[in-house]
Amino acid sequence: MSGVSRRELVVGAGATAAGALIGAAPTAAAGKAGQRAGRVDVVVVGAGLAGLSAASDLVEAGRSVAVLEARDRVGGRTLNHQMGAGEVVEIGGQWVGPGQDRVLARARSLGIRTFKTYTNGAQILDYQGRQTHFEGLIPPLPEPDAGDFNQLLARVVQLESTVPTDKPWTATDASALDSQTVETFKLANSSTAGARFLLDLAVKAVFAAEPRDLSLLHALFYFHSGGGIINLTSTAGGAQDSRFVGGSQLVSLRMAKRLGARIVLNAPVRRITQGRGGVRVQSDAGTWTGQRVIVAVAPMLAGRIDYEPPLPAGRDGLTQHVPQGSAIKYEAVYRLPFWRSVGLNGYTNSDRPPIRFTYDNSPPGGIPGVLLGFVVGEDARRLGALSAGARRREVLGAFTRLFGAQAARPRELIEQNWSNEPWTRGCYAGYLPPGVWSDYGAALRTPVGRIHWAGTETSEIFNGYMDGAVRSGERAANEVSHQL
Amino acid sequence: MSGVSRRELVVGAGATAAGALIGAAPTAAAGKAGQRAGRVDVVVVGAGLAGLSAASDLVEAGRSVAVLEARDRVGGRTLNHQMGAGEVVEIGGQWVGPGQDRVLARARSLGIRTFKTYTNGAQILDYQGRQTHFEGLIPPLPEPDAGDFNQLLARVVQLESTVPTDKPWTATDASALDSQTVETFKLANSSTAGARFLLDLAVKAVFAAEPRDLSLLHALFYFHSGGGIINLTSTAGGAQDSRFVGGSQLVSLRMAKRLGARIVLNAPVRRITQGRGGVRVQSDAGTWTGQRVIVAVAPMLAGRIDYEPPLPAGRDGLTQHVPQGSAIKYEAVYRLPFWRSVGLNGYTNSDRPPIRFTYDNSPPGGIPGVLLGFVVGEDARRLGALSAGARRREVLGAFTRLFGAQAARPRELIEQNWSNEPWTRGCYAGYLPPGVWSDYGAALRTPVGRIHWAGTETSEIFNGYMDGAVRSGERAANEVSHQL
Repeated sequence: MSGVSRRELVVGAGATAAGALIGAAPTAAAGKAGQRAGRVDVVVVGAGLAGLSAASDLVEAGRSVAVLEARDRVGGRTLNHQMGAGEVVEIGGQWVGPGQDRVLARARSLGIRTFKTYTNGAQILDYQGRQTHFEGLIPPLPEPDAGDFNQLLARVVQLESTVPTDKPWTATDASALDSQTVETFKLANSSTAGARFLLDLAVKAVFAAEPRDLSLLHALFYFHSGGGIINLTSTAGGAQDSRFVGGSQLVSLRMAKRLGARIVLNAPVRRITQGRGGVRVQSDAGTWTGQRVIVAVAPMLAGRIDYEPPLPAGRDGLTQHVPQGSAIKYEAVYRLPFWRSVGLNGYTNSDRPPIRFTYDNSPPGGIPGVLLGFVVGEDARRLGALSAGARRREVLGAFTRLFGAQAARPRELIEQNWSNEPWTRGCYAGYLPPGVWSDYGAALRTPVGRIHWAGTETSEIFNGYMDGAVRSGERAANEVSHQL
Repeated sequence: MSGVSRRELVVGAGATAAGALIGAAPTAAAGKAGQRAGRVDVVVVGAGLAGLSAASDLVEAGRSVAVLEARDRVGGRTLNHQMGAGEVVEIGGQWVGPGQDRVLARARSLGIRTFKTYTNGAQILDYQGRQTHFEGLIPPLPEPDAGDFNQLLARVVQLESTVPTDKPWTATDASALDSQTVETFKLANSSTAGARFLLDLAVKAVFAAEPRDLSLLHALFYFHSGGGIINLTSTAGGAQDSRFVGGSQLVSLRMAKRLGARIVLNAPVRRITQGRGGVRVQSDAGTWTGQRVIVAVAPMLAGRIDYEPPLPAGRDGLTQHVPQGSAIKYEAVYRLPFWRSVGLNGYTNSDRPPIRFTYDNSPPGGIPGVLLGFVVGEDARRLGALSAGARRREVLGAFTRLFGAQAARPRELIEQNWSNEPWTRGCYAGYLPPGVWSDYGAALRTPVGRIHWAGTETSEIFNGYMDGAVRSGERAANEVSHQL
C-alpha cells in the first residue's frame, strides 16, 4: 500500500467479514463525521465481485487502492442470508458451472469449495393447468410443439455462434439482428404455443426480462458469451451446475478481508473529476484522489454519477440505454426438503405467474430444505408493486400448487427484490434493447481518459454472471496497470 | 410570494432576460459562496417550458415557488442564438402549429407573435444520388415505391388512432404493438426501398432516433398525441407551420422575467427528500423546502437525482428505460437566403448521411439567410464523435451538395449537439423502446408522495413538443394545487 496511510482508508472490512452485514442501516456518522480523504494509485468504485477482483489484482501488483462502496456491505449482487445454525442461502447471484473459470479460480484461491446443485429426481412441468413430472433439460411437450421448439432452439443455437462476443455489432447480420426484439424473432420462427412458452421461459430465466424487452442481437451475444443457450439454461453440467459452500458472497467477503481497510463502506460516489494530474472521486464518506479510477458498477448506475468534465455523448448515451433486468428471489425455508422424498428435485418450469421456475436451494447437507422461486420480468414489475401481504399470498400459493400442502407453511419466507435496492436497481444484469449494440456498443468498455469501466455487463465471457464480473475486474486492473 | 423572502431566492432572471445567456460558464461563486435556503409552497426542478409554466400558474394562484435550474439560463431544450443585428435563430425546439394551443396561448399572453415557416417554392429530394425538385408533403417516387409508401402510411394512420394517448398500454393490440420495433413493422408492411426510405425519414425527423430504437406502440402513441404522422411531418398547416418572432426561447425568457428572483440558476438538484412535513430539495446553490416538488425534467435526468426515501421500483425502472433521442442542429448563416431566388424553399429530404433534412430557418425578414440541417439518430451518434474539423467538413459538404457552391462558405456555422449538454443529454425528447409502455407506462405521470412529474415526455398531447412541455407544467401545477 505504497503512498497511502491506512488511517485514511476507513470503515474497514473487519465488520464485513464478521458477517453482521445484512439490513443494518448506514449510520449517519459514517457519512458525516467520517469525512476523509486519501491518495492512492487507483480508486475503485463498487465492492462487488468486479471491483474487489480489480482491487485485489492491483494490490497484488503492488499498487495502492481505495475501494469505495455505496452500501454497508461488500458483494454487490451477491448476498448471503443467514438461516440460523450457521447455514446460509444466497438471495443474489449464486450458481457456477463449467467454463466459469475466473470466479472458480478466485474462489479456490480463497479456500472456498463448491457443491453440486441438487438434481436427483424429476422436475415439474406446470403447463396449461396440468402438472407433469419429467427428467432432462427440455420439458416434454406433445407434437407438433416439441418439434417446433426443437427447430426454434436449433435456430438460436446456429445464430448465437455468428455473434462475436467482443464486438457484437460486427456480426454478419448485425443490423437485422439488432433491429428486432426476441419476441419478433420468436413469432417469426415458431408456430406453436408450446415452443413459444419454452422460449419465453428460457429468456425470462436467463435475462429476468421479457422477449419483447431485448434486442435479438443482445440475446444472441449473451447466450454466446455464456457458452450458448443450452449451457445457460442447464443445471447439471451447465451454468447452474454448482454452488459455493458458505454462499457465493463468501468470495467477496474473503477478498474484502484481504483488502482490509482499503475498503470504505457507506461511501456512495457522487462525482468523478479528472484532469491531467489524475482523478478525484467524491463520495459521501470523503474524497479520494488517484491516478486512475475503475468504475465497477452497472452502466445504468455509472450514469447516475456526475462527471467533470462531462462524459462524451456516446458513453453517456450508453448508460441511458442499458436498463437492469427485474428479479425478485423468494426462498421458502422448511425443516426438511420434503419434495426429495417423493422423487422431486425441486426444479419447475411454469407458464403461470408469478413464479415461473423453482430450484432446490438447500445447503449441502439438505437441512434446512429451501425452495427457491424466481419472479422475473413483467411478473416482478407487477408483483413488486403489491402489498407485502398480497405478494406473500401469491408466492406461497404458487409453491403450494407446485409442491403440495407441506409447502404452505415455510419456517421462513425470504424475499429479495433487487429493483428496490438503490445501489442495484435491478438484476440479474443490464440488458440491451434493439439498436443499442449498433450505436453505443463501442462505448461499453472504452476508457474515458482516466476512467475505466468494469462490471459484469462489460465482460465478453459470461456477461451478466459472477464469472463475468470477476473477468471484468481483472481486465480493468490489467488495463490500468499498463497506464500507471 | 407568501412565506418567502426574495432575498433567499437568488441569481434572478434579470441577467437571463438581458440575453447574455449562451456559453457563459457558471461561476464557482454561484455554487459555493451563494449557498442559500428558502421555504416555499412548491419547489420546481427545471426552468424549461414545463417548469416555468408550472411555476407561473402556481404564482398566479397565489402560491410561493422556487424554480431550481441546473444551467445558467432558462429555456431547457429551447435556446436562442444571436446572429448579430438583433436577429436570433433557434438552436433548440422552435416550431409550432395548429393544435399546439397551450404554448401558443402562453406566448400570446406574453406578447410574442408567430410567423410562418418559409415554404414558397420547391423542395429537394436527394435520393439514390440524384436531386430532384418537388412540391407537396410526400416526395414523388416512381412506382411501385410510391404506391407501397401510400399503403404503408395508410396503415400507420389507421393504427395510430387505435392507441389511447392517456394509457397507450390499453390499446386493443397493445401487447403486439409494444413487442416490436418500428423497423420490424416497416419490413413486414412494405416491400420497396422507396417506401422504407420515406418511413425511415419520417421516423428520424419526428423522433431523432432510428426505427429500430422505438417500440411501435410508442411511435403510434406519439404520432396520435401530435395529431398524426402527417401533421407531425408537415410544415405549412402542420407541426412545423410557424415560428416565434424573437425565437422560441423568448417564451421562457418572458415567463422567467415575470417569475423574477423565484428562479435560481446554477442550481443542479442533487437530492430530493420527502417526509410527512414536506419536501427538501438540495441543489448546488442551496437547499429549498416546500410542501410539494414538481420535477420538470426528462425522465432519464430525473433518474439521476438521489431520492430519499428511494423511489419505488416502477418509477425508478421507468427512468432506466426512457433514453433521449440524438439530435445535432446545424445552422449555416449566409448574407441572403440565396436558394429562394432559384425557387427553392430550403426544405430537403435526403437518403445520405449526415444531414437527412434541411429547412429555411431565416428570420421573418429573410436576412440573414439561414439553412438549418438536422443530423439525428445514428448519424448524430457517429458524427458527434468526430473531430470538430471533420464534422464541419461533412456538414458543409452536405449543404454544398444540396444547395450549390454558394452554400460552401457560410458567414457562420452554428452547431448544437444536445447529447453533449449535461443537463439535457439528448433531443428532441425521451422515447420508449419495446415493452416499456407495457410494464412502466403507469409510472410516467403518477406522483410519488409529494413528488410530481412534469416535462414534455409526460404529456398526452404533443408529447415531445414545446406544447407538450407547457401542458405538462400546467397539469402538474393543477395536480399540486389540489394538494396544498
